[in-house]
Amino acid sequence: MKSVVSAVAAASFFTVSASAVLAVEATMIDTTITQAEVEAAQVAWGEALVQISNDYAEGGIDKARATAEAVIDAAYGYGIGPVLFKPTLAAAPQTFRTTSEGALAYFVGHDENFPGDSGFALKGWTAVEIENAAIFISGNTAKTIGNVHITDTTGAVTTVDKTWGYQRDDEGNLRIVLHHSSLPFSAN
Amino acid sequence: MKSVVSAVAAASFFTVSASAVLAVEATMIDTTITQAEVEAAQVAWGEALVQISNDYAEGGIDKARATAEAVIDAAYGYGIGPVLFKPTLAAAPQTFRTTSEGALAYFVGHDENFPGDSGFALKGWTAVEIENAAIFISGNTAKTIGNVHITDTTGAVTTVDKTWGYQRDDEGNLRIVLHHSSLPFSAN
Amino acid sequence: MKSVVSAVAAASFFTVSASAVLAVEATMIDTTITQAEVEAAQVAWGEALVQISNDYAEGGIDKARATAEAVIDAAYGYGIGPVLFKPTLAAAPQTFRTTSEGALAYFVGHDENFPGDSGFALKGWTAVEIENAAIFISGNTAKTIGNVHITDTTGAVTTVDKTWGYQRDDEGNLRIVLHHSSLPFSAN
Amino acid sequence: MKSVVSAVAAASFFTVSASAVLAVEATMIDTTITQAEVEAAQVAWGEALVQISNDYAEGGIDKARATAEAVIDAAYGYGIGPVLFKPTLAAAPQTFRTTSEGALAYFVGHDENFPGDSGFALKGWTAVEIENAAIFISGNTAKTIGNVHITDTTGAVTTVDKTWGYQRDDEGNLRIVLHHSSLPFSAN
Repeated sequence: MKSVVSAVAAASFFTVSASAVLAVEATMIDTTITQAEVEAAQVAWGEALVQISNDYAEGGIDKARATAEAVIDAAYGYGIGPVLFKPTLAAAPQTFRTTSEGALAYFVGHDENFPGDSGFALKGWTAVEIENAAIFISGNTAKTIGNVHITDTTGAVTTVDKTWGYQRDDEGNLRIVLHHSSLPFSAN
Repeated sequence: MKSVVSAVAAASFFTVSASAVLAVEATMIDTTITQAEVEAAQVAWGEALVQISNDYAEGGIDKARATAEAVIDAAYGYGIGPVLFKPTLAAAPQTFRTTSEGALAYFVGHDENFPGDSGFALKGWTAVEIENAAIFISGNTAKTIGNVHITDTTGAVTTVDKTWGYQRDDEGNLRIVLHHSSLPFSAN
Repeated sequence: MKSVVSAVAAASFFTVSASAVLAVEATMIDTTITQAEVEAAQVAWGEALVQISNDYAEGGIDKARATAEAVIDAAYGYGIGPVLFKPTLAAAPQTFRTTSEGALAYFVGHDENFPGDSGFALKGWTAVEIENAAIFISGNTAKTIGNVHITDTTGAVTTVDKTWGYQRDDEGNLRIVLHHSSLPFSAN
Repeated sequence: MKSVVSAVAAASFFTVSASAVLAVEATMIDTTITQAEVEAAQVAWGEALVQISNDYAEGGIDKARATAEAVIDAAYGYGIGPVLFKPTLAAAPQTFRTTSEGALAYFVGHDENFPGDSGFALKGWTAVEIENAAIFISGNTAKTIGNVHITDTTGAVTTVDKTWGYQRDDEGNLRIVLHHSSLPFSAN
């Protein structure tokens, strides 16, 4: 007799044990995001940032821009709708980069429509460490908050406060639909 | 350096490996039903049927009815809305038992509002075997179909074709919101 | 000042009214099935049954089979996994048609692997009326139960007890993942 | 004959119109957040901030703290798990307020465990205007990003970049599970 625990059994009106199940393998539709998927997406973002810096050093703006476009296409959710993106160094009146053009300009600059952008990803980044303070996963959505530490070629480390929001898309991939990055507040 | 696989990394535009994550334990809201929960709910239904039969033999209709009421309260979804219940032997014009009163009458009879009901659960059932043909789980819902074999005190086995549909409720318990049972078709 | 009701406001610790929102149009990911979609899928099933009958009369088994294949491809969920299909007149040991081959054989027969099938959809059906007893929608899944009345060329009406279960697929279409049909029970 | 549009019908293999449905009212489990709910939650947050300021002016820290506790209990998701809260003026090493104690300290100060907190909500705020840049709703979760303009008693307006993430809880209420607020970046 198969031994199983169930809510109904727990209700304690059973004194018998006279039921069994011969099971088949169930079809499962489970779109819940795992913590491993979230962390993989975070690491991939860091890899991408360093890659763009490397590509800029090796191949100039054209190579860097091509990589940045591929990253934005693969990792962000601009195909779903406006992305809730507030880059670290974006200033009013172009604070929020809800379009892929705005995201690309932020990462690689060289866009006359975004005159304040100098290309954040071009600054010679060599390493990215993500230090999560909390992760919240609800079904096919996930949110993270914490510090991200970015190292440049001199070894100097920049720390930002960063939030990411992810959505699993119809192909099963996580996409960044929210990205709020800010410089740490200092009372001084 | 933490080694993770990611959709973006798989896109192959990375040649570097310069990103790492220090994770915390994520808060998870995952209401997806497991196959084990489905099978436990099926076994519990079988146990309940046998229990009602036992209670009827030992304590008469009052004891059987009390158990049946407890089972219906604990295992069915009448608190959510009308249940899609077509019992094996229910006939028109009372084929569908969308209310808990109709379900109780089917299981234990003795209800003048359901004159066709003789009390299916009172018939001395001693064992229930569930033989699933397929199980389909989608998030917080699940469906099963297959044969259920019910043994009586003489050792005779009755086989029915049975579908169950489950919904996880707000307290986290599976509830039967669909139950379609029918006698097997025979061409003869 | 925009007037809105909120859970927090309802908590009654506000005496002020000093907050306003300037909104943009939200991106919505809402996969919840509507009742209209369910009813449309039911009507479409009835139309398909009559169409297969018409095509059989006009073009023979080849035309009927082609239509039935198109219907099964478009309306059932065999692409997701085994379908929980118990047709009205299917008998053991081929009661459950979890594959598309089994569904096709049931609808149009002429398959030596399913010798008991005479082709349910070939029987000259002219009209289908769906009389739902209850509908249960939970997110991207839906279930119905009730009677279906099918009229043939002589005007005779056959009534069955029928359950359908639907799943919205990744393209947004409803698919039948559960279909349990049975002849009404009669105590006589 | 009821006229309905369906995916299958649109597949164009129907030339007949011979199917109809007699529907009942469906039971609906739909937890998808509406845009109106999101905006109401935002307005409520603004009202709460002004209320705490008013209560501080009228009743001192005890009254302000009681209101703030009620607001945090009613509007934030600390009962679900750590909240992803980065307040505007919180500094390392207490940047992230994943506990309700940290949130309360930020809003009303007077907590020796959070020596950097002077009580953001005590600063005489009189009005809050939320200017959303984008809203993203996915089922029972929602995210917003944009500017929030807060007016003090002198009429001076402070603008912050703010992200909120909401989760519908088991009682059906929206709860803030993510709140990232930062001072606008300026290149100067």
